[in-house]
Amino acid sequence: MAVGKDFFPKMYPVPGFRLGASSAGIKKSGKKDLVVMELAEGSTVGGSFTKNLFCAAPVKLAKERIYSNKIRYLVTNTGNANAGTGDLGRQHAESICESLAKSMSVNKETVLPFSTGVIGEYLPIEKIISALPSALSSLSENGWDTAAMSILTTDTRPKGASVKLKLSEKNIIITGIAKGSGMIRPDMATMLTYIATDIAIDQELIKEIIRNAVDCSFNRITVDGDMSTNDSAILVATGLSGVDFSELSLDDQKIFIDNLKDIFLSLACQVVQDGEGATKFVTVRVSSGKTASECLRVGYSIAESSLVKTALFASDPNWGRILSAIGMSGVLDLDIKKIQIYLDDVLIAENGGRASSYMENFGQEIMDKESLSININLNRGDSSEIIYTTDLSHDYIKINSEYRS
Amino acid sequence: MAVGKDFFPKMYPVPGFRLGASSAGIKKSGKKDLVVMELAEGSTVGGSFTKNLFCAAPVKLAKERIYSNKIRYLVTNTGNANAGTGDLGRQHAESICESLAKSMSVNKETVLPFSTGVIGEYLPIEKIISALPSALSSLSENGWDTAAMSILTTDTRPKGASVKLKLSEKNIIITGIAKGSGMIRPDMATMLTYIATDIAIDQELIKEIIRNAVDCSFNRITVDGDMSTNDSAILVATGLSGVDFSELSLDDQKIFIDNLKDIFLSLACQVVQDGEGATKFVTVRVSSGKTASECLRVGYSIAESSLVKTALFASDPNWGRILSAIGMSGVLDLDIKKIQIYLDDVLIAENGGRASSYMENFGQEIMDKESLSININLNRGDSSEIIYTTDLSHDYIKINSEYRS
Repeated sequence: MAVGKDFFPKMYPVPGFRLGASSAGIKKSGKKDLVVMELAEGSTVGGSFTKNLFCAAPVKLAKERIYSNKIRYLVTNTGNANAGTGDLGRQHAESICESLAKSMSVNKETVLPFSTGVIGEYLPIEKIISALPSALSSLSENGWDTAAMSILTTDTRPKGASVKLKLSEKNIIITGIAKGSGMIRPDMATMLTYIATDIAIDQELIKEIIRNAVDCSFNRITVDGDMSTNDSAILVATGLSGVDFSELSLDDQKIFIDNLKDIFLSLACQVVQDGEGATKFVTVRVSSGKTASECLRVGYSIAESSLVKTALFASDPNWGRILSAIGMSGVLDLDIKKIQIYLDDVLIAENGGRASSYMENFGQEIMDKESLSININLNRGDSSEIIYTTDLSHDYIKINSEYRS
Repeated sequence: MAVGKDFFPKMYPVPGFRLGASSAGIKKSGKKDLVVMELAEGSTVGGSFTKNLFCAAPVKLAKERIYSNKIRYLVTNTGNANAGTGDLGRQHAESICESLAKSMSVNKETVLPFSTGVIGEYLPIEKIISALPSALSSLSENGWDTAAMSILTTDTRPKGASVKLKLSEKNIIITGIAKGSGMIRPDMATMLTYIATDIAIDQELIKEIIRNAVDCSFNRITVDGDMSTNDSAILVATGLSGVDFSELSLDDQKIFIDNLKDIFLSLACQVVQDGEGATKFVTVRVSSGKTASECLRVGYSIAESSLVKTALFASDPNWGRILSAIGMSGVLDLDIKKIQIYLDDVLIAENGGRASSYMENFGQEIMDKESLSININLNRGDSSEIIYTTDLSHDYIKINSEYRS
């Protein structure tokens, strides 16, 4: 099950960024499961990776290489996460890069590997290496749609976002794809996203830009609070538009950054909406906090409470569970008499209890919607934060308890 | 559903501690829902209460009174939590205490109130006050069994533990009851426990003793990580055995404390085993950590991972999920190569991957059991901690999504 409509947008090609795919036979269906992406010479790259200590072999390798080399290729297999595979897993990740590098006559250190799928099984390394030439021969700037399909695992639909901007009289493209069913399956090695633009961005700056963009998108979504061993986000700037970010006016820089963040956020929300078992898409807004950090604590306490999530699944405007989740957030000096709780724009609780103006049918009407927001006003400062999440349904249990059977 | 056998032990009466119950008509079934407990003059009392900021009105009142008065009565209603009820809720809690105090000619400040049940509804205060005389007239040192039944809400069975010891040639009794279905329902105002002994314990010391006992029992259980607005634990020492704790030999003091902790732990585990939807009782042991705190972080990360819990429900020895939960525990300097993961005494993972000696059927055999342990060896220090939890089942979703419908 997934929330919202299945809509895949028109994907503008990004000059200098080519994508190709083939089938290595890892997916039992025979569908494409190997994706190669090629970056024009001179591209800069930023990356953000899972903080899980048991991160997969390819993640370790990618983290080591990304900032000490001029990256030229990204290679992704699905169906197998190459995680929990020890030294042999590392050798496998290295030899895929080496084989690709040899074919394309580049240094192996300029290739970053990615894997997603089952944990604890070794990669079918020969199959993958045999399928590389076919993926490479299909490289094309128009390869986004195929790549978006080929990186999927348990996703029910492809995820893409793309925008064309005019900055300094020139066209700029930002295009990206993602896979993931809402952080709910570490053993399906959850979230991967690749975003490319043809603006030029300084190598030091792109590290900062992706950190900020991930922080207000992929770091603001949660389905079950679990963190994958393989999560990775990559931002590539090819520079082939002839526009250099650092030479833009401050206004144009802001326009670019806002659009880039929108692409990240759109992809992150598509991941949440495709969360297995999701029947609701829920925005948790915490406003007027003293600090961003306390807003996040309150927000995550609500978004990750099993009791709030099961109430959402039941479309039950059970404000007591939201109130209790705020009370256990760990922000110890909150004045509960000041806190207001809204469903969309309807005030449901204040002064530590039900709002006097609130009637159950007001809340019911909002709870019946597929997309809704829980808005908390802490009434004690200027910070605010937003988190995106889903409900907790029978299907979540079903999918996650039957997955290996 | 509940784990293990339905077994209610023989409850030894505690001299100086009397219990009575009656029906105030809060429970629709007409079952007893009002419990009064009377403490002999000179008793000392220790308490431990929920840290949820939105704690219920009776919890606030009990916290204010417990250490500034010589407590004589505890009064508990079930079916309604008196939480999220603002100033009127406070008045209600006060007037129950006042009415009881008047009947028994004691100061109202010597009465502690407790409530458990639905959040956000006002107490049927007149019904409760009308039912007080009948509860008071039934006060008896043999009232434990009836009280154990009468404090229940959604529990499927009563919870009790009792022991008789010989210390300094005299008999000492420790007897206790609990209610709660595993912290899984803040709006059913989850966990209450009352434990009494006839040893004498100094008032300052009993505060410390209950803190330690709760810390290794009720603070070590988790079903879904949610924290109730009403959780309370009370320890009463009547002193009527004629034995004073502080006059015991160190050996005898240790025997008493160990037995007291066993009673607390037994009640806490009975609460977990009765968790709604629970099909498994799981002990998570984290050993050889640097500090107790890091052992707890790793333990809770496993015990509260939805993915680990659904794997437990499915009896799936999915070590990848346990490994991933350790990796996201937030203990950042763990050396993953040193960590060993066992199911009961079978080594399933080490060196960051599956143990070479491990076969899936070994793990399957353990996973098929109703009670099992997940044992983590961090191999880097002398600290260890134990946490008790359950699986996450279809019934959990069913109960918590249908509860208000």
